[in-house]
Amino acid sequence: MFRTKNCGELRSRNTGENVTLAGWVKRSRNMGGMTFIDLRDRYGVTQLAFNMEVNADLCEKARKTGREFVIQVSGEVMERSSKNKELPTGDIEIKVDAFTILSKAETPPFTIEDDTDGGEELRMKYRYLDLRRDPLQRNLALRHKLALETRKFLDDQNFLEIETPYLIKSTPEGARDFVVPSRMHENQFYALPQSPQIFKQLLMVSGYDRYFQIVRCFRDEDLRADRQPEFTQIDCEMSFVEREDVLQTFEQLARHLFRETIDVELPEFKRLPYAEAMEKYGSDKPDIRFDMPICNLTDEMKGADFKVFDSAAYIAGINAKGCAGYSRKDLDKLTDFVKRPQIGAKGLVWVKYNEDGSIKSAVDKFYAQDELRNRLAKTGAEPGDLILILSGNQKSMQKALGELRLEMGNRLNLRKSTDFAPLWVVDFPMFERDDETGQLHAMHHPFTAPAKKHESLLRSEPQNALANAYDMVINGVEVGGGSIRIHNRDTQEAVFDALNFTREEAQEQFGFLMDAFKYGAPPHGGIAFGFDRLAALTAGKDSIRDFIAFPKNNAGRDLMIDAPATVSAAQWEELHLKPLQNEK
Amino acid sequence: MFRTKNCGELRSRNTGENVTLAGWVKRSRNMGGMTFIDLRDRYGVTQLAFNMEVNADLCEKARKTGREFVIQVSGEVMERSSKNKELPTGDIEIKVDAFTILSKAETPPFTIEDDTDGGEELRMKYRYLDLRRDPLQRNLALRHKLALETRKFLDDQNFLEIETPYLIKSTPEGARDFVVPSRMHENQFYALPQSPQIFKQLLMVSGYDRYFQIVRCFRDEDLRADRQPEFTQIDCEMSFVEREDVLQTFEQLARHLFRETIDVELPEFKRLPYAEAMEKYGSDKPDIRFDMPICNLTDEMKGADFKVFDSAAYIAGINAKGCAGYSRKDLDKLTDFVKRPQIGAKGLVWVKYNEDGSIKSAVDKFYAQDELRNRLAKTGAEPGDLILILSGNQKSMQKALGELRLEMGNRLNLRKSTDFAPLWVVDFPMFERDDETGQLHAMHHPFTAPAKKHESLLRSEPQNALANAYDMVINGVEVGGGSIRIHNRDTQEAVFDALNFTREEAQEQFGFLMDAFKYGAPPHGGIAFGFDRLAALTAGKDSIRDFIAFPKNNAGRDLMIDAPATVSAAQWEELHLKPLQNEK
Repeated sequence: MFRTKNCGELRSRNTGENVTLAGWVKRSRNMGGMTFIDLRDRYGVTQLAFNMEVNADLCEKARKTGREFVIQVSGEVMERSSKNKELPTGDIEIKVDAFTILSKAETPPFTIEDDTDGGEELRMKYRYLDLRRDPLQRNLALRHKLALETRKFLDDQNFLEIETPYLIKSTPEGARDFVVPSRMHENQFYALPQSPQIFKQLLMVSGYDRYFQIVRCFRDEDLRADRQPEFTQIDCEMSFVEREDVLQTFEQLARHLFRETIDVELPEFKRLPYAEAMEKYGSDKPDIRFDMPICNLTDEMKGADFKVFDSAAYIAGINAKGCAGYSRKDLDKLTDFVKRPQIGAKGLVWVKYNEDGSIKSAVDKFYAQDELRNRLAKTGAEPGDLILILSGNQKSMQKALGELRLEMGNRLNLRKSTDFAPLWVVDFPMFERDDETGQLHAMHHPFTAPAKKHESLLRSEPQNALANAYDMVINGVEVGGGSIRIHNRDTQEAVFDALNFTREEAQEQFGFLMDAFKYGAPPHGGIAFGFDRLAALTAGKDSIRDFIAFPKNNAGRDLMIDAPATVSAAQWEELHLKPLQNEK
Repeated sequence: MFRTKNCGELRSRNTGENVTLAGWVKRSRNMGGMTFIDLRDRYGVTQLAFNMEVNADLCEKARKTGREFVIQVSGEVMERSSKNKELPTGDIEIKVDAFTILSKAETPPFTIEDDTDGGEELRMKYRYLDLRRDPLQRNLALRHKLALETRKFLDDQNFLEIETPYLIKSTPEGARDFVVPSRMHENQFYALPQSPQIFKQLLMVSGYDRYFQIVRCFRDEDLRADRQPEFTQIDCEMSFVEREDVLQTFEQLARHLFRETIDVELPEFKRLPYAEAMEKYGSDKPDIRFDMPICNLTDEMKGADFKVFDSAAYIAGINAKGCAGYSRKDLDKLTDFVKRPQIGAKGLVWVKYNEDGSIKSAVDKFYAQDELRNRLAKTGAEPGDLILILSGNQKSMQKALGELRLEMGNRLNLRKSTDFAPLWVVDFPMFERDDETGQLHAMHHPFTAPAKKHESLLRSEPQNALANAYDMVINGVEVGGGSIRIHNRDTQEAVFDALNFTREEAQEQFGFLMDAFKYGAPPHGGIAFGFDRLAALTAGKDSIRDFIAFPKNNAGRDLMIDAPATVSAAQWEELHLKPLQNEK
């Protein structure tokens, strides 16, 4: 070993010990006759002291040692005269008497500090330097801890971690697959899994009873800001269970993880039906750290000769408590917010409940003050409040109000990253209809069982059937989702029928699963958690990228290793491929 | 839950309890007025009893229930009149009073028993049924336990599990890569990693100090019997360490795993230099559960006018203790064995030390008995022993004697699957020379550091430089291998030079690693274990296939899901590809 202690463990109780440390030079300071170096490793920072009078050579050498040099030093642990209370090792320093440079360093392209001066692109290219920064080291340590505690908890609950293959078969269902050309089987391809869904169901058919896996998944999608082509799931499945068993088990998992990693006791997990979530929060993943529900005012607001409302299919508002003081400028900003194409409202109607009891609104000429007060009674508005109203198509205005609600939550600082408000959203529809084609699509995936009471609807009116599916939502983030699965051929065929799969298509793509159901399949269900997102959420962060050691950029590129890249002509040939355009 | 207890937990202390069980019908037996069903789940087997006199309907129903049906039953736990001592639940049975068929089953294509009647191909196609068999369930449970204990141990030792990317860049070094065409970047490819080698070294440069990962790796090789295109590694790396630190750490890991999973205390790990391993055992992964070393007899056997020996560069033998009684037929079989093309000897010279003190050999006409006894003194042969001698080219005959030694070990039952004999093979050469091209190749990989005392040889006579590399070998299986790595550009460049890489090639392929070394790299080293093989070894088995839930066959096919497979014309087009031969 190049060290006897690490840079994070020495305390004043170690005073007088002779130690050897190794690490990176974080910074050095010359103070007259003394030179100090802060030596850094994963465990902490320790101050090294060099005295010009005691050992000039050593001190000179220390002065020539630049940032990020890797050095090894030996010396005695001394109590510091001026202690640094900010640092766990701040009571001591090392009086260095031997010094070796293990590796020199050029000046890094950006500073290795919590707040670095490096831009996004530069930090991605030199990811190995960015990863030296404390925030990233903390993130990856948290991720490690989350994974380990997940495994401990699930092992305690009799789950077996079983690895499923990464080289599987492409299925057109769902998102686009990454594929892998086979050299041995000309013009055939493996596909990388979008999830181990079918394999975990087969493991239930095989009697493994409780399965989990922390597993990489792949989707070749056009990348949005916070999506990665490869991402990690905590994937779980249980046999002989009903919905409540799954919810209880994984609520306990979430509790365990928050307790063990960030010492937080999660409050009760509410159960919220999908329809109610959309109605009250305009979202299937509501942030319930704050209330501010959407209040349907369609009946209340009509009949005052205000054409916009009279012609609207749906009118609803939210009560922004204490915001009556908003200026014209504030309200214009909110109006701009809701008119952005992503939100899609035509305009915003605001109503101020002034502290003096008077009411001021954008629709004063259509509603008398008292009338407006009556019509808005169900919003619970009190003096000081601001009511924000949108109107139009119900589905899109619910979503718009949901976004406006989150925006107001941000403005009112009601979405603290250290508060955690979990819930289960349940009773999702089985299918959603494609507005263009009129086709039904599986809202979760085609293996989701219908709610018990809706099994008969599956053939008669599938569009109205509810699914036995559930999402775990924390702070407006969909942390996990799953369902009770279909475990017999008849129901599975009914779903494929509703999705307009021919028997042949169904058999070709999922034949082995349908076949498996012929040989005795247990009732089963499960869930999958987005592990990257769970790590970010636990740390109170929005972006997953800083919780992945080597992420890709929005174009799916790894800027550090420069992938994807060209391959040799020999590789093309071995794989029996040529480019569509003969550009090579 | 569909059950209150599982099929493995009821004992006589539960007598009188009302329980609900669910599981698979393992078998049923009609005994006059009684019908018995053995109900199976992952946890065990419980006997269900149906009495025709008590409830004829239920008993009739039970009689119609076939093998592998999934059923749910309720009833009272009763003490059995005739107990089954073979079964943990053998003291009790369930007097069933309610019975539900959860899922019917067709007759499986092979029997779900420890010794099944299904052939290899059929069992691969119906892997989900094969996985129901006890031996496979035990294997996957053992694998789960090994993974969990690996993580617990390494976490205790301050290792962080950090996930590295699966979509990386193809490098011509080593085996053939699987590649993934990019849709967004025309005619560019990702590659699937053969190992996370470079990423783990970068993590050391990033200061993560101790890294591990249980990770999938991919190699597009022509498959031999027991190779898989995707396999799992326990991949580890440590900073500020020397060889001894790595060996100590992972010897402890191996001890921990054997103790926790199969309750075995591993004996001392010997250190054996590569040269000595080849000399004594004809293998770089010797099975030292038994001794029987190769004895060099080149000097001793020459000069008796036996042309075969006189013209041989190398003559050596092994002493098969107690085999003097071998018949002519036995010896012919051994001769056939060494003459097989994989072994490659031209013939076998045997010398019997008979119990009566006489000597009988295949070379009686060249050596008198006493002379032969003298010449063979160093084999330590005693009455009752059999000496087996090969001659020819040293390298190939050492290997052949190594194989013969293992064969004799098998015949003498000296290789018990419940004995474990671990060792470290050390001091490997840095390079081996390709016999055809005369080119040097890295024996481990190009990031391996030379042995300290051989650093200067790297430029002067690289072919003689030893590497700071090590393999963990248990029972003749290479369980893991690793090395201290190069951590500076100069040494790395010297290795690339020895390997005949141009600076440009080195920079293009490994530039980011060479660049990383510019910014302060710690001394580091690591190891990777073949996890599939470790699981098989722990269970005392040779084949890894039964320790992988969904393996591929020797042609790289998954027979169950039928992958690889064709993809749609649209997928070809999106990926900017067309077939080399226009067969589509």
